[in-house]
Amino acid sequence: MWQPDRSSKQALYQQIAAYMERRIFYGEFPPGSILPSERKFAEQINVNRSTVVQAYEELRASGIIESMVGSGTRVSKYKWGAPKQTPDWLQYLEGGTVVQPNQSFLRTIREELDTGRLLIDFASGELSPDLSPNEAIRLLLSEHSLHEDLGYDNPQGYVPLRQALVSYLQQYRGIRATESSILITSGSHQSLYLITQRLLSPGDAVAIEDPSYYYSLPMFHSAGLRLFRLPVDEKGVCPEGILSLYREHNIRMIFVNPNYHNPTGRVLDPSRRERLLDVCGHLGIPVVEDDPFSLTSFAGNPPPSLKSIDVNSTVLYIGSLSKTVASGLRIGWMVAPQSVVNRLTDERQQMDFGLSVLPQRIAAQLLSSDHFDRHLQRLRQELSHKRNLLIDALQRELPGEVSYTLPQGGLHLWCKIKRPVDDGRLLEEGMKRGVVFVPGSVYGSESGYVRFTYARPQPDEIGPGISKFAQALRAVVK
Amino acid sequence: MWQPDRSSKQALYQQIAAYMERRIFYGEFPPGSILPSERKFAEQINVNRSTVVQAYEELRASGIIESMVGSGTRVSKYKWGAPKQTPDWLQYLEGGTVVQPNQSFLRTIREELDTGRLLIDFASGELSPDLSPNEAIRLLLSEHSLHEDLGYDNPQGYVPLRQALVSYLQQYRGIRATESSILITSGSHQSLYLITQRLLSPGDAVAIEDPSYYYSLPMFHSAGLRLFRLPVDEKGVCPEGILSLYREHNIRMIFVNPNYHNPTGRVLDPSRRERLLDVCGHLGIPVVEDDPFSLTSFAGNPPPSLKSIDVNSTVLYIGSLSKTVASGLRIGWMVAPQSVVNRLTDERQQMDFGLSVLPQRIAAQLLSSDHFDRHLQRLRQELSHKRNLLIDALQRELPGEVSYTLPQGGLHLWCKIKRPVDDGRLLEEGMKRGVVFVPGSVYGSESGYVRFTYARPQPDEIGPGISKFAQALRAVVK
Repeated sequence: MWQPDRSSKQALYQQIAAYMERRIFYGEFPPGSILPSERKFAEQINVNRSTVVQAYEELRASGIIESMVGSGTRVSKYKWGAPKQTPDWLQYLEGGTVVQPNQSFLRTIREELDTGRLLIDFASGELSPDLSPNEAIRLLLSEHSLHEDLGYDNPQGYVPLRQALVSYLQQYRGIRATESSILITSGSHQSLYLITQRLLSPGDAVAIEDPSYYYSLPMFHSAGLRLFRLPVDEKGVCPEGILSLYREHNIRMIFVNPNYHNPTGRVLDPSRRERLLDVCGHLGIPVVEDDPFSLTSFAGNPPPSLKSIDVNSTVLYIGSLSKTVASGLRIGWMVAPQSVVNRLTDERQQMDFGLSVLPQRIAAQLLSSDHFDRHLQRLRQELSHKRNLLIDALQRELPGEVSYTLPQGGLHLWCKIKRPVDDGRLLEEGMKRGVVFVPGSVYGSESGYVRFTYARPQPDEIGPGISKFAQALRAVVK
Repeated sequence: MWQPDRSSKQALYQQIAAYMERRIFYGEFPPGSILPSERKFAEQINVNRSTVVQAYEELRASGIIESMVGSGTRVSKYKWGAPKQTPDWLQYLEGGTVVQPNQSFLRTIREELDTGRLLIDFASGELSPDLSPNEAIRLLLSEHSLHEDLGYDNPQGYVPLRQALVSYLQQYRGIRATESSILITSGSHQSLYLITQRLLSPGDAVAIEDPSYYYSLPMFHSAGLRLFRLPVDEKGVCPEGILSLYREHNIRMIFVNPNYHNPTGRVLDPSRRERLLDVCGHLGIPVVEDDPFSLTSFAGNPPPSLKSIDVNSTVLYIGSLSKTVASGLRIGWMVAPQSVVNRLTDERQQMDFGLSVLPQRIAAQLLSSDHFDRHLQRLRQELSHKRNLLIDALQRELPGEVSYTLPQGGLHLWCKIKRPVDDGRLLEEGMKRGVVFVPGSVYGSESGYVRFTYARPQPDEIGPGISKFAQALRAVVK
């Protein structure tokens, strides 16, 4: 985001006015379009609201913008010579996704993080930058040769990466696959997008866990799916509800995250795994297994994948490097029957014409090298250390006031607040004090839960962050 | 694609049978699914059809697969213990895109290129690998530091890349933009996808050039758009037809590629540019300007962009590095009013959760360095040299039999064949002789045209390639 230059001799409000005039003149805000509100814009560029009011006043004085009672400030229609007809962009933007209430929390958090203000971040569901194998990536990048082809990629994904994944899946996840059964996607996110958009139709009923990360994804809503919930308890999701959901609502697919479940951190019980596959095999309902966290297992012995015991081709398996290597590589994959891979390859090709070769090459080299295993060892240690710091801080700051299941892997701790609390107000009070986290209702839970991502903050931020959280909690429940 | 090991002592057919059994056993071909035909599979793995027949015979003998009269070979349903119900994957794959006839040519070419057979390639619309700035990219990659954050990217695109593009657009394309008006996309392809899928609705009428690259894109068809054509002559697209198309069909958007148009190579006449913007401004119809080729201008003075004379916010501008740097970076961008950028950012985020940071960082560094300008100079020289080689070869091999407009930039030559010819048969005969090119009907033209991409083959392949083409032509028109 643009920021005024505080070392300049020009007054802040004049810089702002000049900046907005440029944006209007360049067509970013066509005649008739609405400008950001003074309050919001001031927050974004870190100035007082009154400075923006003064800047807008300038523009209003020169006739470039005009204020409309009750509808904000807009770009004048008749400033630029004879009135011309600009495309009615609003009309082109009509329809589409309706923002869900739980989205507004995520948007608030995102906007707060984007201001560049110093915040302790328990909200972003990713590793802190130092947990990525940066030295290994640097080495691999420096080995890039002059003669590597940077042409269009194979639509199904870079072949050497798919070959490396065949070994990875066998070694780490007990999954036997061939390179032709693997589709590389932009993180596991794009695999989910392809499945929800292309294998399902609007109005289809699907079952998800309760609480569930999926609930927070606009793609599930904009695909027009009807979401039904399967309760998650200490042993993970309960498969017993599937049969009745199938009879009542004809559910067509089930989405699960069996290992170190997001947000609860739980691991699906072995007997429930078998039962889940039995029931779904019996009904012919595909199970989408989302498996991003397994290799973070603190003890180094990840629970098996559902796919490894899937004798019946019931499971679509999804994995990624986002939670174990670096989210910014955007490397994910799906293992599926060939007819599904072929169709989704065509669909993906329509959307982006394939992924960049560079990060795929890095991923292939990393997975085929010794760096990867060494990285995993360090990652597990660091994550388990950070989890311990979080637990210590919670016990110190909020003894007896919260409860949780101790996660044995993954990035998140799911925390129940014992006294009744409005989680929206809690977030607000937290942000005032410089800490962000995700309110439980984002995942479809009752108010009164919070997801803390211990993987994201630095170790020395965890204690102070929880101390701020405790203050926020006291402000809300008092 | 997997290939049998010809140095192994195990017979080819046994290797193939073992490989297919593995794929079936891993669930890539669930019970009941259809295997590739013997002929097609043999082509893919470069063996005789009879070898695959023998391999399938093995599998049939052990009851793993079965032949169905008239419907090919499928995986046995009852081999794997008690009959279980596999999800009916075909049902999940129903519906969706209907393959257009022009797609089948492109698929044929793709499959032919994928066999790994040595072919002279005038079909792939991209640079040959040596035309990318490989040395500069290698240098920039080697400068990657340990401490760069590989976390999730800004949803609108890597900020330093958007900043670099502000200067790029001003310097090379006369376009004034701010970083907030730029959305980074996976090539220009993803910009087009977002526009066709999210700003338009099924049934909407749009105008495209005739002939047009857009006609070959499945995304235009699967978005359910009704395509109307504006003829392209020596001076580029004729804007006169717009008014009547608007009255008759209420066209809602116009897609143009004004500079070194794909496939014709033509440049839109200056007076027609003004007229186009006038008419569209008057009617309030957005113009999508696709501008991938301008910087290849052989003389080094690219024609201006439409966007640079768009006083009315009528133009959505799309650019990319695919045709000037490397298609495999997947770097493209759109310049649009902020309301459009914001909405399409949200939509893109749903699809892939952002692009990889690595190629965006390389692109930002490249555009901000001296390497870029030096690269462009070399690129122009090499492309113009290759165009000359192509022209020489056509004059030598087919004097008086073809005609074309000499392109002054871009990657393609659009060639009319004077005698009547079936372009599908021409392609078939060409492939037999080891040369591929794109039949004109892929772009919605009458049969009798061919697009040659001189950018893709090596200089010493161009003469022999056209010689093979000439033989193929003689085989078809004789």
